[in-house]
Amino acid sequence: MKALFFDVFGTLVDWHTGVARESERLLEPLGHSLDWLAFSAAWRDEYQPAMEEVRSGRTPFVRLDVIHRRMLERVVPKFRLENVQEDVRAELVLAWHRLDAWKDVAPGLEKLKRKFMLAPVSNGNIILMVDLARRNGFPWDAILGAEIAGDYKPKPRVYLAAAEALALRPEECVMVAAHSYDLKAAAGCGLKTAHVARPGERGPGTGESAPIVPVDFAVKSLVELAEKLV
Amino acid sequence: MKALFFDVFGTLVDWHTGVARESERLLEPLGHSLDWLAFSAAWRDEYQPAMEEVRSGRTPFVRLDVIHRRMLERVVPKFRLENVQEDVRAELVLAWHRLDAWKDVAPGLEKLKRKFMLAPVSNGNIILMVDLARRNGFPWDAILGAEIAGDYKPKPRVYLAAAEALALRPEECVMVAAHSYDLKAAAGCGLKTAHVARPGERGPGTGESAPIVPVDFAVKSLVELAEKLV
Repeated sequence: MKALFFDVFGTLVDWHTGVARESERLLEPLGHSLDWLAFSAAWRDEYQPAMEEVRSGRTPFVRLDVIHRRMLERVVPKFRLENVQEDVRAELVLAWHRLDAWKDVAPGLEKLKRKFMLAPVSNGNIILMVDLARRNGFPWDAILGAEIAGDYKPKPRVYLAAAEALALRPEECVMVAAHSYDLKAAAGCGLKTAHVARPGERGPGTGESAPIVPVDFAVKSLVELAEKLV
Repeated sequence: MKALFFDVFGTLVDWHTGVARESERLLEPLGHSLDWLAFSAAWRDEYQPAMEEVRSGRTPFVRLDVIHRRMLERVVPKFRLENVQEDVRAELVLAWHRLDAWKDVAPGLEKLKRKFMLAPVSNGNIILMVDLARRNGFPWDAILGAEIAGDYKPKPRVYLAAAEALALRPEECVMVAAHSYDLKAAAGCGLKTAHVARPGERGPGTGESAPIVPVDFAVKSLVELAEKLV
């Protein structure tokens, strides 16, 4: 094993409370009063349908920032946000750039970096990954994932493009994620897999507390993963 | 100015003595006795002709590791290395992954990182950039350059793809290089430019001690650049 690839949203960063916080910061001064956590969850609910438009080939590949904007447009009517202006909508999309990592991530990555190359293999685009890394101190060796592959996980091309970028065989790479569908696809491409439990991903009692597919490693935190691998 | 883009070979790392050292390390035990610096320079002399094959569209884009191997094959007869085996030739190409940075680079980048996003915009491929960064502690935010653009500098696509990856306008980016042809092309795309003098790039008395095209900044070291910009 030479490289670890990381899913980011949910696995490394807390999108649920972070998007809620940023949305409140931007919209509350404009007089909006929403259930901010419900708004965050509803926005994210548009993720898989929007992804599927691209993965199926029905619409061309565009970066996740553009997809996040499309998803926002779909939830605007449900939360009566039709009068939110263009510049505020553009700023709202940047909420996804301002998310905080779960507490175990920084110490875990620091230790893992000593032995492995580390890269996000997220559906997030490059500047989105860069902004999250600068905010949280993620010590990436490279930004891999959807934008360099030109397609979205769980399509095989994304995992294989990441391995190829580092001149590695798939079995020399480990996909680390909190979502079994991601790990199943990575394993199908020949990568090793590590599941990180994130039971609080979408609020108490949500998320996967254990993998529902076979994986090579199953841990509760990146610190535990580092203890196993380094 | 939000991001600084760096040329790498010659600008940040000393390829001339590094490739010579690595070649000697690999070939001397096999009984070869060359002028190692001359071998290094001859290998690099094949660079622009090999690049031009791709830039002109005569051959498809392949990563620089593959180009370095093609360049090696062209110098093998001149140095009577025909009996060097396949595995040693493959290892020789990795000499380009094992180069040391000029002394000013680490402190300069560390200071520049506080204010700017930093990325290599080199013709080197991703794993080549990652290996050099891990060896020398380059604090990149992302690996940009030829491999994500699918073409080679000084083609405009490479500079523009780097700016687009960070969601920046060209004028928000600064190309930093020791080679005027690189800076001229970047300026033609709308980027700002900074020239770093590397008079010793190819041995004493070689390299550009000053830019031969108009630039926005001209410095003797990355430490001086950081003093100007941060």
